[in-house]
Amino acid sequence: MTARLLNSRDAELLERAQRVVPNGVWGHMATRAIAPGYPQFFSRSQGCRVWDADGNEYIDFMCAWGPNVLGYRHPEVEAAALARIDQGDIGNGPTDTMVELAELLVDTLDHADWTLFQKNGTDATTVCVTIARAATGRRKILVARGAYHGAVPWCSPSLVGVTTEDRAHLVLFDYNDSASLDAAVEAAGDDLAGILLTAFQHDVGKDQHLPEAAFLAHARAVCDRTGAALILDDVRAGFRLDVRGSWARYGVKPDLAAYSKSIANGWPLAAVAGADRFRDGAGKIFTTGSFWYGSAAMAAAVTTIRILHDSDALAHTEAMGNRLRDGLATISARHGFTLRQTGPVQMPMVLFDADQDLRIGNAFCVAALRRGIYLHPKHNMFLCAAHTAEDIDRALDGADGAFADIVSAGILAA
Amino acid sequence: MTARLLNSRDAELLERAQRVVPNGVWGHMATRAIAPGYPQFFSRSQGCRVWDADGNEYIDFMCAWGPNVLGYRHPEVEAAALARIDQGDIGNGPTDTMVELAELLVDTLDHADWTLFQKNGTDATTVCVTIARAATGRRKILVARGAYHGAVPWCSPSLVGVTTEDRAHLVLFDYNDSASLDAAVEAAGDDLAGILLTAFQHDVGKDQHLPEAAFLAHARAVCDRTGAALILDDVRAGFRLDVRGSWARYGVKPDLAAYSKSIANGWPLAAVAGADRFRDGAGKIFTTGSFWYGSAAMAAAVTTIRILHDSDALAHTEAMGNRLRDGLATISARHGFTLRQTGPVQMPMVLFDADQDLRIGNAFCVAALRRGIYLHPKHNMFLCAAHTAEDIDRALDGADGAFADIVSAGILAA
Repeated sequence: MTARLLNSRDAELLERAQRVVPNGVWGHMATRAIAPGYPQFFSRSQGCRVWDADGNEYIDFMCAWGPNVLGYRHPEVEAAALARIDQGDIGNGPTDTMVELAELLVDTLDHADWTLFQKNGTDATTVCVTIARAATGRRKILVARGAYHGAVPWCSPSLVGVTTEDRAHLVLFDYNDSASLDAAVEAAGDDLAGILLTAFQHDVGKDQHLPEAAFLAHARAVCDRTGAALILDDVRAGFRLDVRGSWARYGVKPDLAAYSKSIANGWPLAAVAGADRFRDGAGKIFTTGSFWYGSAAMAAAVTTIRILHDSDALAHTEAMGNRLRDGLATISARHGFTLRQTGPVQMPMVLFDADQDLRIGNAFCVAALRRGIYLHPKHNMFLCAAHTAEDIDRALDGADGAFADIVSAGILAA
Repeated sequence: MTARLLNSRDAELLERAQRVVPNGVWGHMATRAIAPGYPQFFSRSQGCRVWDADGNEYIDFMCAWGPNVLGYRHPEVEAAALARIDQGDIGNGPTDTMVELAELLVDTLDHADWTLFQKNGTDATTVCVTIARAATGRRKILVARGAYHGAVPWCSPSLVGVTTEDRAHLVLFDYNDSASLDAAVEAAGDDLAGILLTAFQHDVGKDQHLPEAAFLAHARAVCDRTGAALILDDVRAGFRLDVRGSWARYGVKPDLAAYSKSIANGWPLAAVAGADRFRDGAGKIFTTGSFWYGSAAMAAAVTTIRILHDSDALAHTEAMGNRLRDGLATISARHGFTLRQTGPVQMPMVLFDADQDLRIGNAFCVAALRRGIYLHPKHNMFLCAAHTAEDIDRALDGADGAFADIVSAGILAA
């Protein structure tokens, strides 16, 4: 194997953090939930690269878990945001940038007649659910088993600190299973407020599945028939697969949709976009946050979305995703491993066959880290427009070495 | 009266916004909820001044509804945040700035052994409640009638789109009323998870009340006896009244506290700070957000808090608050009006006596607007360290004129 990463600064920071933060770090970026050997602290990001606190450089395939879509510190996006900061990010109301962004989103998203802005993806999904209930006067929200929609009690993947009542009006079904959806609709009866679906099935640790066109059409038909809201949670996938919204290619329009992550290329922003039928409901709820009219993040979003329109950024990202997927398939086979690579190539999930305890996947990802490639063993990854063919080829070289490393360490395919 | 404000650009922006945003704007900054005549859109902020979209300049007494504590665009705060942005605001984990900020908060707040960071004040109050439940294994949260703790279903001031179950485990009591608190404690029985209290009573449209020392001590004793969490919602007042936390002067330490608004002088950040007894509970819940490790806002917070420590910013703000309160009392009396000025002088609530429909207050505030003074007729206002004695005196001159304006328009004290 190659040498251990330099990690003395990381260890020192984690030790200090553990004194003043429970467990040192929390949430989805806590590396103790990934695999031993991951650096926890970072110092810098640029393009498709990140540097950890010890200065180790990585070709990054997590993109800050989604926000980075054009490349970290994209000069045009940064310039637009900093120009707003130079005038004052916040005041006693929105700026004209809010109007500009709302108009751009309504023009861009195939399903949107109006928008509202927030800071977190969870804010956006929560607002969608609240609007669905306000507009319909009903309570039940149908959600797919295992889907992630945020980290507050009504939707958190953890039940610690959560009461039964927080989830009293959720009804579960299986993604892509129309019969299961019908059973949930039946269970909700005349209290059906909405059906909440991620853009595709991207549950942690599992093979990903694109939505089946017939399933989406069925969900749409159910909502048309019942008056319930079809809610697209496009927080993770939005503005990475398709600037028009991730279901535009299926011709299925949600009534409400939640966006965040890559909408402003890393600047903190979320948005709800909805159809006219839900405009009154949206106008009746009370939703707000101290920083939600901050204009820097909105200016970043305007520029990000314009670049997505005017450049080949998303087509390029897809091409790079195909290059990575094809390369990994060839190289892994050469080393005797079978990979399951699922979901959109821009958001790849890479799992090893017969590796339920992730023994192989973890070893491979840590070996890749040591060769300067930042992968994830069980969460979908993210490509961005800053990944070049050369970056992908370097990453594939690193993966080739990582496969060799784990084989020589005695880790073989089952 | 003085001439109408130039407001053609504001009207044009609102008309455009109404096409693409329900009602054009939403939340606490929607001026339709204040009074007719307020500008809705802003273009610039600097120090204690804001400029609306038409370029009208105001001495601002809302401070973006709290975030501005040192003055908009404080050069040291901006430089610290921009230096982090220059390295990349986000990556695949926190930077050393997170550790630095957590250490500084634990050193600064009189009650804190650990911290967690978020983006919205509502995130912070929600995390506090979730931790209280996780740590105690109980469900009931006691909240004061009329208190604002955020804008999601469990705590929203609006019930539109909210289900009964969202508030199933809230028990109400009256602020500063120990007997009422005892009755709520009794009602919660052995299911008492926490008591949630704002730093002082700052309900919209009502006279403000500081907490009574005996009441806080009683709430503390109840929590000591029952093991429930005493939760301070210091989102609105924190880092404006006292850098150590708003209850430090009372010698009452909360178990958990929520901060946001002015913690980073306008950069989007929130924090939960807690005592060791709740560290394990905090470590067990799942809480996260896409942008919560963004280092620019954390660097802004480090610099903001250091300035609050090292300068007379808060003492100066208090002195300016006293100057404003004393001046308004004198001037209003001269024009025949009696004001009720309540709460901390840094966060003044100014209500007219016998003005339940706010006819006088609205007219006065709109007259003040036309003289370049941005006040609020029914929400607490905010002073910041950038308000100089000259600014206050100019504002008082403007108020003097505004009183004269409304009197000559026939609006007299009841």
